[in-house]
Amino acid sequence: MSDRFTPTSADKFTFGLWTVGWRGNDPFGDATRPALDPVESVERLAELGAHGVTFHDDDLIPFGSSEGERATHIARFKEALERTGMKVPMATTNLFTHPVFKDGGFTSNDRDVRRYALRKTIRNIDLAAELGAETYVAWGGREGAESGGAKDVPVALDRMKEAFDLLGDYVVEKGYDLRFAIEPKPNEPRGDILLPTIGHALAFIERLERPELVGVNPETGHEQMAGLNFPHGIAQAMWAGKLFHIDLNGQSGIKYDQDFRFGAGDLRQAFWLVDLLEQGGYEGPRHFDFKPVRTDGIDGVWESAKNCMRNYLILKERAAAFRADPAVQEALLASRLDQLALPTAADGLKSLLADRSAFEEFDVDAAAGRSMAFEALDQLAMDHLLGVR
Amino acid sequence: MSDRFTPTSADKFTFGLWTVGWRGNDPFGDATRPALDPVESVERLAELGAHGVTFHDDDLIPFGSSEGERATHIARFKEALERTGMKVPMATTNLFTHPVFKDGGFTSNDRDVRRYALRKTIRNIDLAAELGAETYVAWGGREGAESGGAKDVPVALDRMKEAFDLLGDYVVEKGYDLRFAIEPKPNEPRGDILLPTIGHALAFIERLERPELVGVNPETGHEQMAGLNFPHGIAQAMWAGKLFHIDLNGQSGIKYDQDFRFGAGDLRQAFWLVDLLEQGGYEGPRHFDFKPVRTDGIDGVWESAKNCMRNYLILKERAAAFRADPAVQEALLASRLDQLALPTAADGLKSLLADRSAFEEFDVDAAAGRSMAFEALDQLAMDHLLGVR
Amino acid sequence: MSDRFTPTSADKFTFGLWTVGWRGNDPFGDATRPALDPVESVERLAELGAHGVTFHDDDLIPFGSSEGERATHIARFKEALERTGMKVPMATTNLFTHPVFKDGGFTSNDRDVRRYALRKTIRNIDLAAELGAETYVAWGGREGAESGGAKDVPVALDRMKEAFDLLGDYVVEKGYDLRFAIEPKPNEPRGDILLPTIGHALAFIERLERPELVGVNPETGHEQMAGLNFPHGIAQAMWAGKLFHIDLNGQSGIKYDQDFRFGAGDLRQAFWLVDLLEQGGYEGPRHFDFKPVRTDGIDGVWESAKNCMRNYLILKERAAAFRADPAVQEALLASRLDQLALPTAADGLKSLLADRSAFEEFDVDAAAGRSMAFEALDQLAMDHLLGVR
Amino acid sequence: MSDRFTPTSADKFTFGLWTVGWRGNDPFGDATRPALDPVESVERLAELGAHGVTFHDDDLIPFGSSEGERATHIARFKEALERTGMKVPMATTNLFTHPVFKDGGFTSNDRDVRRYALRKTIRNIDLAAELGAETYVAWGGREGAESGGAKDVPVALDRMKEAFDLLGDYVVEKGYDLRFAIEPKPNEPRGDILLPTIGHALAFIERLERPELVGVNPETGHEQMAGLNFPHGIAQAMWAGKLFHIDLNGQSGIKYDQDFRFGAGDLRQAFWLVDLLEQGGYEGPRHFDFKPVRTDGIDGVWESAKNCMRNYLILKERAAAFRADPAVQEALLASRLDQLALPTAADGLKSLLADRSAFEEFDVDAAAGRSMAFEALDQLAMDHLLGVR
Repeated sequence: MSDRFTPTSADKFTFGLWTVGWRGNDPFGDATRPALDPVESVERLAELGAHGVTFHDDDLIPFGSSEGERATHIARFKEALERTGMKVPMATTNLFTHPVFKDGGFTSNDRDVRRYALRKTIRNIDLAAELGAETYVAWGGREGAESGGAKDVPVALDRMKEAFDLLGDYVVEKGYDLRFAIEPKPNEPRGDILLPTIGHALAFIERLERPELVGVNPETGHEQMAGLNFPHGIAQAMWAGKLFHIDLNGQSGIKYDQDFRFGAGDLRQAFWLVDLLEQGGYEGPRHFDFKPVRTDGIDGVWESAKNCMRNYLILKERAAAFRADPAVQEALLASRLDQLALPTAADGLKSLLADRSAFEEFDVDAAAGRSMAFEALDQLAMDHLLGVR
Repeated sequence: MSDRFTPTSADKFTFGLWTVGWRGNDPFGDATRPALDPVESVERLAELGAHGVTFHDDDLIPFGSSEGERATHIARFKEALERTGMKVPMATTNLFTHPVFKDGGFTSNDRDVRRYALRKTIRNIDLAAELGAETYVAWGGREGAESGGAKDVPVALDRMKEAFDLLGDYVVEKGYDLRFAIEPKPNEPRGDILLPTIGHALAFIERLERPELVGVNPETGHEQMAGLNFPHGIAQAMWAGKLFHIDLNGQSGIKYDQDFRFGAGDLRQAFWLVDLLEQGGYEGPRHFDFKPVRTDGIDGVWESAKNCMRNYLILKERAAAFRADPAVQEALLASRLDQLALPTAADGLKSLLADRSAFEEFDVDAAAGRSMAFEALDQLAMDHLLGVR
Repeated sequence: MSDRFTPTSADKFTFGLWTVGWRGNDPFGDATRPALDPVESVERLAELGAHGVTFHDDDLIPFGSSEGERATHIARFKEALERTGMKVPMATTNLFTHPVFKDGGFTSNDRDVRRYALRKTIRNIDLAAELGAETYVAWGGREGAESGGAKDVPVALDRMKEAFDLLGDYVVEKGYDLRFAIEPKPNEPRGDILLPTIGHALAFIERLERPELVGVNPETGHEQMAGLNFPHGIAQAMWAGKLFHIDLNGQSGIKYDQDFRFGAGDLRQAFWLVDLLEQGGYEGPRHFDFKPVRTDGIDGVWESAKNCMRNYLILKERAAAFRADPAVQEALLASRLDQLALPTAADGLKSLLADRSAFEEFDVDAAAGRSMAFEALDQLAMDHLLGVR
Repeated sequence: MSDRFTPTSADKFTFGLWTVGWRGNDPFGDATRPALDPVESVERLAELGAHGVTFHDDDLIPFGSSEGERATHIARFKEALERTGMKVPMATTNLFTHPVFKDGGFTSNDRDVRRYALRKTIRNIDLAAELGAETYVAWGGREGAESGGAKDVPVALDRMKEAFDLLGDYVVEKGYDLRFAIEPKPNEPRGDILLPTIGHALAFIERLERPELVGVNPETGHEQMAGLNFPHGIAQAMWAGKLFHIDLNGQSGIKYDQDFRFGAGDLRQAFWLVDLLEQGGYEGPRHFDFKPVRTDGIDGVWESAKNCMRNYLILKERAAAFRADPAVQEALLASRLDQLALPTAADGLKSLLADRSAFEEFDVDAAAGRSMAFEALDQLAMDHLLGVR
């Protein structure tokens, strides 16, 4: 069924090779699906209307491949990209699957593991640059601890800073047009992960030698695993000029990392997120980092990939209708969103201090009595989301 | 019972007037205790060994007091401080109780409410400075929303920044020796609160005109309401040089804000927190922001205040014993905490890139086979916490 | 705007007097709205298309009223009911607001408080019966503890059982046609509440003297505060024949009790809930137990009451369309919901044991290879929910 | 170090073969430890002072073993048991690892999978009985769904009931002295699992044909993943006469299933749990169902197994001291735990209704003014837990 919710490359939808390629192994069960050839993934996603794919080094080149095997994997991949017109806007490093990373990559207590992690990353940065990627994501899923004595956190943050500073040196020296995006997550697979939320990552970046090179790659489910409002977090990242990339998926509340297709999970937050991205000027890829449920066969893989994009496009249409509706514009005024956009004290401190109407003569009870009219505004959003206006 | 866990002023324990003064009203029930006179609170806390008290403007001077009443309240309070030797290291503003703040203070959609909030804050800053406070806390508990359209978050962050910039101007112009500390909270009383975690607050501060004037005042329970590891958050704040103040209490997991006495809730995190503060060089007050359970009468109020301090001192003794134990020092080496403290690439990028032992010749399987020995280390901590070594 | 989503009395929508009457006081703030006269609530809700109202004793007759005042309040209320045709299908007791209940009603450690709680309940049962209520709800919000020693739980469950047994005796002796419905909640206002979920309440009921008289009154947000799937819990209650009443509202994940209007919060669970209630034969009232956000004035109160019903009717239409769609019926077959409805071993144990195809000759790999086709089915639900089919 | 916290067989500590045998694979990482021979596990656990081991069929006999291999595995295991004196008080079925169970065992939508699951279970019941097990555990970790249409819950509960009824028939016909214990879990590996909490399982059992044969096997972390108070849940299970077995481990709040060693996680709940089991007359095994952290080698495996037992014994000593302390007994009286143990209305309903002191003449304000004195009681518990009294 091709309809107005069928994507084209212009929609900038991208998928990780590891998403459609996930075989369904989980903490209690073995893989339920066979391995997918990355070339097939590229082809099928292209057919579905995707813009590109992204990858961890080990998604494309199995860990332990020889130089020759590596070259073959890369060549086949490039050929598929060229043939389909698919892009590779982002790449990243797998610093979590192999047991050598059991205590982390950049912050492992073992110095040689940290050095290995940096070199493994640098190697894949070269490939990312070669493939035209603009963003290099770093998810530090193993950087953390299960017990209080196991990690000296300030010292570990020194190591984390050291790693990003070195990587920054590297891309600058190489002249790569590549920026880094840190992907926060509160926990799983570690009991607690360093840089657990968008906020912690944004704050960390400010202490780097080249903060301008580093932004964030927030993932829907990761923030929601901490019970945080995802659109709010994205808004703060945009406000800070740091939304370099985004991982879209679905999560049903505070629990294990579910990685549902986009739209599943918290549908109302998904609506506000799309509204924010579309109105707020985000121009990067809409990247889906999800896992097709392991109950399904390969049919479910392509079905869910297609529906990530479909749901985004439905929500995009609905959000646009919401913003265009005169009743909504009236409701926004009734809720004084226009006043929020005005400076509180455009004339500065002195004028504020001198204004008796601001304090001494302010009628607090009258002000308290004004309705914010939020229920009506929120129902307009609900009506648009559900398509009943 | 006076013992080695009985505090003195040198321990720098402080309490909010609103903590012992909480009357027990909650969303489903009326107050269970009579109001406490701030003077009595100062006296009783002094007797218990506290170092000082802190206050919201309205704790000391009931909202709506005349100028004359205000002066009387302040005079009585000062007299009690002088008599008892109690300090006031911190003060803050109540921008949440009166209905005028129902949509926030610094980020209310209503501009006149924002102006009123700033003026109310400035007024109490004057008093804070007069009383010798070094830290002025800002908890933006009402800065947030319950629905997606009600708050334009980037615009609200502009208003939040404007507020802190103006307040920074004010203290600089006045020459006050006062720094600000933002207190993050993820939700309650708003559905989602802006600057929901330590990380978000730290990141926000970096965009202010005078970032050096502003730090954080994290509260145990607030971070734990997002399922975050409190000591980890504090460690990042210390790493950033931003732990200006701290609110200690207890929380049993992700639920409503419980504000139990310190030690109740997550006892193991409390141990690691005290370890971090004591070893990490935090020199500010140990401030308790808790609520004595409403089932108890006034006996429970002083009992719990006393036990906040007692529990801190017990944990301090235990953490010190843990750090001093040679078996712990050995275990830390076995877990390679010493290696974590070494730079990963002290010789820089070039040397790392040239080091074949770091990658090409690195024996990943051998490295993966090394035990981190974390279980033994964590049991040593448990043994010290429980006092069985 | 009157449309197909405007309710009539036949829709059986009911509201607690305390819902629209909530004045907006919360743990950190004072009331933002004036008190509502119960008579006005009856009238306005009738105009909006509601079927009836419900009440706590103290909602209708302020705590401490004299006998004469009580009679007047009841008379006015009855008159309004008669005039508007509104019903009172349910009533309940306030055993939580007054400080006397600070440690609970039926399980307070104080025996005289327990006796008082029973008598207060019995008094309102008489009124409930007089007003034609069929269900008497018991929310034990204060039955619980904040600390482990404060409540001996097995003993407290004995007291809880004693209370329900006595109340059962009472309604049987009086010949009232009234059944009880226990409303579970995991926490807030107590640290942990007894009978925290639907399951715990259902299990408890089985140990009562008259289990047939007692069922459950689950509330959307209460189960979601424990991260539980609300429709699943309702399904188990229906399966046990125990869904005597239901409280509909909205909650955004694991946090304080939010009591948003129905539809806000987890919209997809709301869809599946309405589907379940409508297809599953639930015939009781659709009772809204929500709180209009305190940012809004009285306009928001009626707006949100109206929208609780509107959202239910929208979801009802969408769920019906989902069930009627031939593509959905096909998808359900593809996912083998028909097979789930077949007994696993209709011929009994002996036949199962003798069936070599069931085990010895069962091709596990072939069976494992069958796709469950859940992603496609779930997208059909999403399409219907969003109204794009 | 052998001390008073070194266990003996009389302490009834048992371990699942899968616990020490866990190789460290998680959703994001491969195994970090080699496989353990069950015979070695039996021997090492015996040396550490354990009472016995438990197993899933596939722990002992790898899935797909021939009849001959099966016999050899069993013979070696029996020999080790005999040699060491270790018991097997419990066994269970693996209905989750193989992809054939991806949609569940007893409630898979596929009828032939359900039949296979029953036969697989029955086969292991025979072995369990042969080895002298008294309890057969059923953890339905795959019985659930990720999306609303995928599972018709009432129908699935019919299938679940059918399964337990058939299994009950089987053990009765065989004359086995074996009872079943259902292990609830809220989620992971399914989005939502059927019978998510102790309460739901207890309620379900009451609808079985032979409820007397079926109880629960609650796991610490599983209840805490729903934010529930574990000791409270255990107390309700004991109150219902249904605590047939227990799984002890550690969990740090609402997140993925952590399976830390006992004592890690919520230490205060662990204290109250041990207090409850020891004072409350639980006589079954103290079974540890945990996972040694994957960062550690085999050293961490035995270290953590030893410490599960050590921590239990420390807490047992501390709980006994708490109960024996005269100051605690006084504090319990001050908190009126003695009154909670008295019937509320020993003389029955009539007498309660006639007692004017119970209602008409009850002084609510005086009663409300009584302190429950819970803070003092809880600090006594803290002091005992920490060993400072």
